[in-house]
Amino acid sequence: MLFWEDFHEGHVATSGRYVVGREEIVGFAREYDPLPIHLDDAAAGATRLGGLSASGWHLCGIFMRLAVDGFLAGSDCLGSPGLDEVRFLRPVHPGTVLSLRRKVLETRSSKSRPEMGLVKFHFELLDAAGEVVAEIVGTILFGRRNPGFRPA
Amino acid sequence: MLFWEDFHEGHVATSGRYVVGREEIVGFAREYDPLPIHLDDAAAGATRLGGLSASGWHLCGIFMRLAVDGFLAGSDCLGSPGLDEVRFLRPVHPGTVLSLRRKVLETRSSKSRPEMGLVKFHFELLDAAGEVVAEIVGTILFGRRNPGFRPA
Repeated sequence: MLFWEDFHEGHVATSGRYVVGREEIVGFAREYDPLPIHLDDAAAGATRLGGLSASGWHLCGIFMRLAVDGFLAGSDCLGSPGLDEVRFLRPVHPGTVLSLRRKVLETRSSKSRPEMGLVKFHFELLDAAGEVVAEIVGTILFGRRNPGFRPA
Repeated sequence: MLFWEDFHEGHVATSGRYVVGREEIVGFAREYDPLPIHLDDAAAGATRLGGLSASGWHLCGIFMRLAVDGFLAGSDCLGSPGLDEVRFLRPVHPGTVLSLRRKVLETRSSKSRPEMGLVKFHFELLDAAGEVVAEIVGTILFGRRNPGFRPA
């Protein structure tokens, strides 16, 4: 089980493999982002995206799934206050294979809540060629193994 | 059809009504955010969230759906380069009714792409009591009605 103390500034790891299917792109979009670029090949082909592309919010969901499977499920994760930045860099077309790279930017203890600590991450969704298709900077709360302990 | 020229700094509007159901919370989480706080009443009740709560990414999807239904579907929306900030302020439990408030923070033309313009929004997801449960600051690209025209 990973606690706050187990995260260290500068640590980088890559994990997971997620194939983004056409039906999933359309299914997600129909529910949450029903715009033609995510639903219709012809409409999407006529745009600068060059073809049917996953909703950015869908990519965020896939990112989260890769993060849960990659390390959060095995951690004392207590949620997130939010994100500082999300960038959609390249369109993600059906058949794209994604993995997740995470880097620890910063770790902070919490004065008001000594039972938890904060870890700020830089996450990148990579395609099979290693190109970054989206990046997310956000903070996650973790329980502390030693809530009372303050390093000198 | 709304074009870039139709958005004006300071404009505020509220739209939509989205009932967040228990099955939808669990279904979304099972696919994209399979952590106990989004899947299991007992596990969630033991946390500071006080009970089963929607994934923050699920809230982002609901936000997008309210934005599409509220104004994007009737616009020349060309996608988004990303978000500057996402804050999850209150847990969203089953049965919560959400609506969307949008405020135009800034409009900018694009030097490199005169056929489009950028609009930066502050979005707030509101519950039935008018409390803000999440906020998002992000930029959306829109086509211009008059691509060549530059106001003096």
